[in-house]
Amino acid sequence: MAAAMQAGIKLADRQAVCILRPMADGGEGTLDALHAAVGGDWLRYPVSNAVGHRVDVDCLLLPDGTVVLEVARIIGLPDAGDSDVKERSSQGVGQLLLALVDAGYRRIAVALGGSSTNDGGAGCLVALGLQLRRADGAALSGSLQDLQYLHALDASGLAVGLDEVSLEIWSDVENPLTGPHGATAVFGPQKGVAASAIQTVDGWIAHFAGLLDADQACSLSNQPGAGAAGGLGYAMQLLGGRMVSGALAVAQHIALAKEIAAADWVLTGEGRSDSQTLSGKAPACVANLARQAGVPVSLLSGAILADDGGDLVAAFDGCYSLCNRPMTLDAAMGEAAERIAQQSQQLARTILAARSVRN
Amino acid sequence: MAAAMQAGIKLADRQAVCILRPMADGGEGTLDALHAAVGGDWLRYPVSNAVGHRVDVDCLLLPDGTVVLEVARIIGLPDAGDSDVKERSSQGVGQLLLALVDAGYRRIAVALGGSSTNDGGAGCLVALGLQLRRADGAALSGSLQDLQYLHALDASGLAVGLDEVSLEIWSDVENPLTGPHGATAVFGPQKGVAASAIQTVDGWIAHFAGLLDADQACSLSNQPGAGAAGGLGYAMQLLGGRMVSGALAVAQHIALAKEIAAADWVLTGEGRSDSQTLSGKAPACVANLARQAGVPVSLLSGAILADDGGDLVAAFDGCYSLCNRPMTLDAAMGEAAERIAQQSQQLARTILAARSVRN
Repeated sequence: MAAAMQAGIKLADRQAVCILRPMADGGEGTLDALHAAVGGDWLRYPVSNAVGHRVDVDCLLLPDGTVVLEVARIIGLPDAGDSDVKERSSQGVGQLLLALVDAGYRRIAVALGGSSTNDGGAGCLVALGLQLRRADGAALSGSLQDLQYLHALDASGLAVGLDEVSLEIWSDVENPLTGPHGATAVFGPQKGVAASAIQTVDGWIAHFAGLLDADQACSLSNQPGAGAAGGLGYAMQLLGGRMVSGALAVAQHIALAKEIAAADWVLTGEGRSDSQTLSGKAPACVANLARQAGVPVSLLSGAILADDGGDLVAAFDGCYSLCNRPMTLDAAMGEAAERIAQQSQQLARTILAARSVRN
Repeated sequence: MAAAMQAGIKLADRQAVCILRPMADGGEGTLDALHAAVGGDWLRYPVSNAVGHRVDVDCLLLPDGTVVLEVARIIGLPDAGDSDVKERSSQGVGQLLLALVDAGYRRIAVALGGSSTNDGGAGCLVALGLQLRRADGAALSGSLQDLQYLHALDASGLAVGLDEVSLEIWSDVENPLTGPHGATAVFGPQKGVAASAIQTVDGWIAHFAGLLDADQACSLSNQPGAGAAGGLGYAMQLLGGRMVSGALAVAQHIALAKEIAAADWVLTGEGRSDSQTLSGKAPACVANLARQAGVPVSLLSGAILADDGGDLVAAFDGCYSLCNRPMTLDAAMGEAAERIAQQSQQLARTILAARSVRN
């Protein structure tokens, strides 16, 4: 998309200098955006995906020594297929953390967006040494459905070595783990939790977190962000992770503020923009940095749904859809690069004309 | 649409002064645009519509004494229903011209766009005194289907009084009357001429015009614009009319150049913009006037189809579709005012930001 913007702008002004900085907000594409901007080395490890199949997953060792892992690459929604959400587990995330710690990495960031699991982070924690048991003493694996049989847990072996790790949690979700604003109620449906099952599933997770909070003498399940990634936010906080805005973390790693300060105009965008855009999404982060630098910033998205209020409009110096005509969603996605280029060209022409007029 | 543009711009800048000048190009809406800008008196006459029903038609007496009649109001495509194009006649246009001349008006402009007829202008000329006859001497009315029986004509009684009239033909069509670029081949299909009938129908019209050209010792059927409005362009030229750009004529009557010269930015638009837009359509006329005045001009249309080349893009300082998302044509038309307002607001925000930056 950044290259398409450049192509359009160059049509309007061949002399234009375009600085391309693909952005991400901690969801899918975070590692690619970082790698495009600052490089780094890919590290590959075999882990379990959401339904227990072994997959090779790449994480990114940044030049500053931080390893970033993208949850979407391990237990991502597109890979979950039509599996039952109750059978899915976040264990692969725990396996990857363990492998990184064993390999000696001490600065780790977990980009939380795009998960298919809703297991309260139990699978991840089991992979890191937490023991879950039935009433008869049998061990549980930590998939969502296992939590209904949970009787007792033992955290004494949890996360050996992680206390030496600086762990960042990249996310823009502020929901608690359970309850009406919790992971299951808010994000469960899009992962396949039936409306009729929400209360039951939420109860399983609350039971699990209640036992673990009590064992650890904390109440992390109520923390903002605990409900991120089906409860991985809870698990990561329990492991000592610090929640940071995914978009802001990416922006800092790619030195976006410095690039923006040197620019005359900033273009950003996303698939679909509405009032949620301002809740920590990448374009909102870009807009904030641009405002701080006093540089105009425009939004170029697949859809601009701004009728519900002026906040989105006020955040940008023009919000534009890439749609150049009445068209289907399929056409808009299929032609996205051409349409982004076209719209960028038009925007550049307007800006150039406005700047050439005396104030 | 102009009011919607104003509403959006005012959201971006409450201090903005908007000058609203609805434009038209000689097609539907021409009289409304003129009346909105300069007022004038409506004159109502009973005439025949394309299928011979009596209708009351308004034409507009402008303050400068010119009477403008809009062909679309007399024999317009929407009123033709599912009637057979062969049965339609432009006689109502001739009747109205006759009524105006009889009433003493001597400056008349005929806005040609939007007709449903393809009779070579024969119906109009018959209403003005031209006699068409079969081989057996029986009179013909001048509908398209009548022309197939045409054997001889007598123009001796044609258009008594019209030689004292200054007659303008407002159109942006440059097609000749017949042949591969003629009225039937190019515009016939959208009026209901079957592909298989084009050659036959074109032959009827060529026969009619051949007889009339010979009688008048001219070759007006080959003139650019003779193919406008199903051949009314030919009839009007035969009556002494001067072809002028409809858009430019409207612009002159509403003193658009003067308003543009005083503006900081011009917004114009139409339903759908493509390379044809530059062939005398209203936005092209507005763009030319703006360029002459050195004022930036942007295009805001339902669709911007600019992939086939750069001419449309080069004519404007930004071409924008009103579509804010993937949407159907029905939705785009139904929400046109809101979407125009939204897009105008965004454009105004971009322009304001660009102007506030130091060059």
